[in-house]
Amino acid sequence: MFIPTLERLATETQKAKWLPLATNFKILGTYAQTEMGHGTYLQGLETTATYDHVTEEFILNTPHKSSMKWWPGSLGKSSTHAVVQAVLIINGKKYGMHPFMLQLTSLDNHMPLPGIEVGDIGPKMTLDYNDNGFLLLKNVRIPRQHMLMKHAQVSSDGKYTSSGPNKAIYAPMVLVRVKMTKWVHDALRQAITTAIRYSAVRHQSKMSDSGPEPQVLDYQTQQYKLFPVLADTYALFFMSRNLRRQYNRMMDEIRNKGSYKMLAEIHSISCGLKGLSSKLGIDGASICRTACGGHGYLKVAGISEVLGLLHSVVTAEGEYTVVCLQTARYLMKQIAKVSVGEVVTGSSEYLNVDPQSYSCPLQTPADCLNLTFLCDIFRNRANCLIRSVASRLQIDIESGAPQHIAMNNNLQSLVRVAEAHCETIMVLDFTASVISLRTSPETIKVLTSLCQLHALHTIVKNAGDFMETESVGLEQMKWIREQELKLLEIIRPDAVALVDAFDLHDDSLGSLLGVYDGNVYERLYESTKYNPMNQNVVHPSYYKYLKPLMSGEMISKL
Amino acid sequence: MFIPTLERLATETQKAKWLPLATNFKILGTYAQTEMGHGTYLQGLETTATYDHVTEEFILNTPHKSSMKWWPGSLGKSSTHAVVQAVLIINGKKYGMHPFMLQLTSLDNHMPLPGIEVGDIGPKMTLDYNDNGFLLLKNVRIPRQHMLMKHAQVSSDGKYTSSGPNKAIYAPMVLVRVKMTKWVHDALRQAITTAIRYSAVRHQSKMSDSGPEPQVLDYQTQQYKLFPVLADTYALFFMSRNLRRQYNRMMDEIRNKGSYKMLAEIHSISCGLKGLSSKLGIDGASICRTACGGHGYLKVAGISEVLGLLHSVVTAEGEYTVVCLQTARYLMKQIAKVSVGEVVTGSSEYLNVDPQSYSCPLQTPADCLNLTFLCDIFRNRANCLIRSVASRLQIDIESGAPQHIAMNNNLQSLVRVAEAHCETIMVLDFTASVISLRTSPETIKVLTSLCQLHALHTIVKNAGDFMETESVGLEQMKWIREQELKLLEIIRPDAVALVDAFDLHDDSLGSLLGVYDGNVYERLYESTKYNPMNQNVVHPSYYKYLKPLMSGEMISKL
Repeated sequence: MFIPTLERLATETQKAKWLPLATNFKILGTYAQTEMGHGTYLQGLETTATYDHVTEEFILNTPHKSSMKWWPGSLGKSSTHAVVQAVLIINGKKYGMHPFMLQLTSLDNHMPLPGIEVGDIGPKMTLDYNDNGFLLLKNVRIPRQHMLMKHAQVSSDGKYTSSGPNKAIYAPMVLVRVKMTKWVHDALRQAITTAIRYSAVRHQSKMSDSGPEPQVLDYQTQQYKLFPVLADTYALFFMSRNLRRQYNRMMDEIRNKGSYKMLAEIHSISCGLKGLSSKLGIDGASICRTACGGHGYLKVAGISEVLGLLHSVVTAEGEYTVVCLQTARYLMKQIAKVSVGEVVTGSSEYLNVDPQSYSCPLQTPADCLNLTFLCDIFRNRANCLIRSVASRLQIDIESGAPQHIAMNNNLQSLVRVAEAHCETIMVLDFTASVISLRTSPETIKVLTSLCQLHALHTIVKNAGDFMETESVGLEQMKWIREQELKLLEIIRPDAVALVDAFDLHDDSLGSLLGVYDGNVYERLYESTKYNPMNQNVVHPSYYKYLKPLMSGEMISKL
Repeated sequence: MFIPTLERLATETQKAKWLPLATNFKILGTYAQTEMGHGTYLQGLETTATYDHVTEEFILNTPHKSSMKWWPGSLGKSSTHAVVQAVLIINGKKYGMHPFMLQLTSLDNHMPLPGIEVGDIGPKMTLDYNDNGFLLLKNVRIPRQHMLMKHAQVSSDGKYTSSGPNKAIYAPMVLVRVKMTKWVHDALRQAITTAIRYSAVRHQSKMSDSGPEPQVLDYQTQQYKLFPVLADTYALFFMSRNLRRQYNRMMDEIRNKGSYKMLAEIHSISCGLKGLSSKLGIDGASICRTACGGHGYLKVAGISEVLGLLHSVVTAEGEYTVVCLQTARYLMKQIAKVSVGEVVTGSSEYLNVDPQSYSCPLQTPADCLNLTFLCDIFRNRANCLIRSVASRLQIDIESGAPQHIAMNNNLQSLVRVAEAHCETIMVLDFTASVISLRTSPETIKVLTSLCQLHALHTIVKNAGDFMETESVGLEQMKWIREQELKLLEIIRPDAVALVDAFDLHDDSLGSLLGVYDGNVYERLYESTKYNPMNQNVVHPSYYKYLKPLMSGEMISKL
C-alpha cells in the first residue's frame, strides 16, 4: 500500500524524492489509516495534523487511546516510514482526512524517533507472520512538504487549496476486493482438496452386513457436505476470473479514455462479491474441517489455518455487512432508475424485466438441470427481492419515517438483496463460462454437473426466498431437492479428479490428510517425531507435577 | 473415563486392586479406544489381544499404523496406565472388542515399558493443554487377570464366557453427550457476552447527518446477527437443563427399578441434541467473531478460542452426521410403530397426530408471537418430514433397492429429520420453561421475547422446510419475517442486561473486548505491553534481515 499511495497521492517532486528510496529498500514503508476506534467510517478518524505556520510544520497527535493507529501491516516492527492519514487542522479549522509522510524510526539503529510509540498489536487467529502494528503520536513535527499534496495543498502561510475529490483513488480499493475473491478460491481449494482426498482414503462402518467398509466419500451425507463446496470452489474461480476481466476493462477505459463510466458498477459488485466469497469460504472450510472428523482438528490437517485466514477475509477491506450494504445501495439506485422508465445495464440488467411477466420455467424434474432456466429463476428472485425492499423503503418514508430510520428498519433486507444479487452473478458467470469453454465434451459435462449443483444447492439453501418470491413453487422445490441429490451420484466418480485438477503440490497444500499419494496414516505417525512435546521421552512436567503428585508429596503439602 | 470404566467393567477383585491406586493418584490412567483409522465404527478397531494359555497372558499388538491408539486424552505424556480396548483372539478366533488394563510406564521413572511406544499426537485447533496421545504396542504381555472381566471372562485354559451385552454401558456415553449440550451453552455465552458488550462500546458511522455515531448495537444488521445467537444461548440453557433432568430420572429408574425403559428415548435425543447444539455453537460463535470486526480477530478477544473449542464438540463423542443418524433411526422406528396403530410417547409424541388434520394456526401477524401456535408449527413440520422420508424409504425398498442402498439414498433426508426433531424439542423446552418460571413479570416478558425470536429465527433459517411441509403459507412467512425484525427492537433495551445476567467475571470471560466496565480501548493498549514481540524496542529481525536489506548487503549477496 505504501508505494501505490505515493504514486497516487504524492506530487512529482515528492515522488522523485521518496519513490527511489522505497523501491531500493532504503526506507521500508507502510500505510497507516485504521485506528483502534475507527475502521470503516473514515470521517470518524481522530489523528490530527495541526499546521504551525511559524515553523512551517505539521504537528501530529493521537488525541485519545482510541485514535491510535491499529492494524497497519508491518507497522509494528519492520517499517521505517508510514503514510499516516490524519485530520488536517489549520487555524483551528478541520479540513478532513489527508495523507502525511512520517519517518517512524532512525535509519541508523531502527529506534523510534521522539514522540513516536510503535509496536505489535498481538497474536491473531492466524496471519501472525505479519507484524500488524500500533502507533501513538505525541507532538511529532514534520515539514510542510511531508503532506502528500497531489490533490490538496497547504501553502507556507497556511492557505488550503484542493482540486476536489478524485475518483481514481477508488480504483485500488476495488482491485483489492477483486483479488480477495481469488484468494478465497485459493484458500477453499486447499480445504476441499484435503477433505475430498481424505474422504477417499478413510473407510468407515458398513453399509451392508456382507460388504467391506466403504470409503466415507461413498456416503450420501459426506457427498452432500463436500460436493457443494467443490462446486462453490469452481464457481468462485469463474466468477473471480470474470470480475478481474471486468476490472481490467474498466482500468483500460480509465487510462485510455479517462472514462469512469464502469466504476460504480464494478465497485458495487466487487463489494458484494468479496462479501459473498468470504461467506462461502468460511462456511465451506468449516464444512471441510468437520468432514475430516477428529483428524481435521489436528493442525497438520491444515484446514484450521485456512479457516483462520478466511476469517480475516470476512472482515478486512470492508466488513461483510458494510460491503453488502454498498452493493444494496447501488441496487436501490438502479431500481429507482427503472421505476422512472430508464433502462439499466450491467449485472442488474434483469431489473428491466417486470416480474409480473415471469412464470417458473420448470415443467418437469429434468428441467431443474437446464442452466438457462436456472439463470432465469435466480434473476427473478433477485428482481423481486430488490423491488420489494425498494417499495418498503418508499412506504416507510411516505408514512413519515425519517430517511435514516427507514434505512435502518430495512437494513437486514438490504443485506439480503445484495446476497441474492451476488448469488445471481455467480450462477450466471459459472453458466456462461461453462458454455463458452473450449475443451473436451467430457470436461464440459462434469463442469456442467458442478454448475448445476452450485445453482441447485444455492436454491435449496435459500429455499424460502425462492418460494416466497414465487420463483419456484412447492412441486418444483421437491424436484430441485431430488435432482440435487442425484447430482451427487453423477459427480462422485470424478470428485477426486476434480480436486487433483487444482494441481496443488503437497508442499503448497500443507496438509497430511490431503497428500497426493493417500499415505495418510503413515505420515500422521511420522509427524509425531517432529512434535516438540515428544523431544523428551519423559516430559519435564513429570518431574515438576506428576512425580510429586504420585508420591504424595504434593498432597501432604496441601 | 478411566475410573468410571473400572467401576463399570472390572470385577470386584479387580476394583479392589486398582480403584484405590487410581483414586489416590498412585497410578494415573486413561481410556484408550479410538484408533488412527477407526473412531465411530467400533467393530473396525484393529488392536489385538491374543491369549497365550501356556503363560496365561494376553499378547497386545498394533498390527498396522492405522491401528495405533490415537486421541485418548492425557495418554501422550501423563498417564501411567490405560484401559485399552482390543479385539480378543483365542485360538485364532476373534471375540470382538474387550477392555484390558495395561501399564504404560515405569512407576519409578515414567519411562515407557518394553514394547510400548507412546507420545503426543501434536498441536490442535485448540485444547492444546491436553496431551492427546498415541500408543503403539509390540508383543506386550499382560497377565490374564488384566482383562476387565465383569461382563466377559477368559478362563486360564482359554475358555470364553460372556454374560451378553449390557445396556448399562450406554448410560455413561449418554451422560457425556448430555453434558456437552451444557458445554456449548457455556462456550456460547462467553462469545455472545463479548460480542454484545463490545457492540455497545463500539460506535460507528452515522445514521443521520446531524446525529452522533451510534453504538453498533443500534444497527438492525448487528441486532440481526447477535440477538438470535443470544436467544439460542438461552434456548440451549433450558434444553440442556431439561435434558439433564430427564437423564437423572432415567438413572433413578435404572438404579431403583432396574428399568431401562427410558434409555432408547434419552439416548436418541441426547445424540441429536448434542449435534444440534454443536452446530448452533459453531455458527453462533462464528457470527460473534465477525460481529466484533477486526478486533474480534485478535486472540485477546477470546472468541477464536471459544470457536476452536466448539469445533471439537461437533466431532467428539459422535460426529455430527453420525449422531443425527442415530436420532433419525429412532424416529423411523417410532413412525413405524405409529403406522401399525401404536401410540408413541416422549419427544416424538407429535407423530400420533395425522398431519392431514393440521391447518396453519396463524391468522394475523400478531399470531406469530403466540408460542402455542409456534410449537404446533414446529411439531407439524417435523411430523411431515419424518413421514415423508419414511415413505420414501418404503418406496425405495418396495421398488427393489437393497436396504443399505435405500438407506444411503435417503441419508441426507434422515439428517434433516433429526435436525427438525431436535429444533422442535428446543422450541418446546424453551416455551415450557418460560411458562413455568417463577419470577417477575418483567423477566418473563423479556424471556418470552427471546423464546419468540428463537422460534421465528429458526423458522426463517429453514423457511423452505416450513413452506414445503405447508406448516406455514406464503402470507404467514411474510408476517414471520416482519415479526422477527420487530422483536429485535423489543429486545434491544435489555440486550446488555441479558448477557450481564450470565454473570461471567472478567477473568472467566477471558476477553478484552467483553470486559464488564467497557474500558476496551485502554485495555487493548495495555495488552501490547505483555506482548513478547514488544519486549525489545528493536526486534532481533531488524539486525538479521532488515538492516542488511536496507544497507544493500543482502542484495549484493544475491
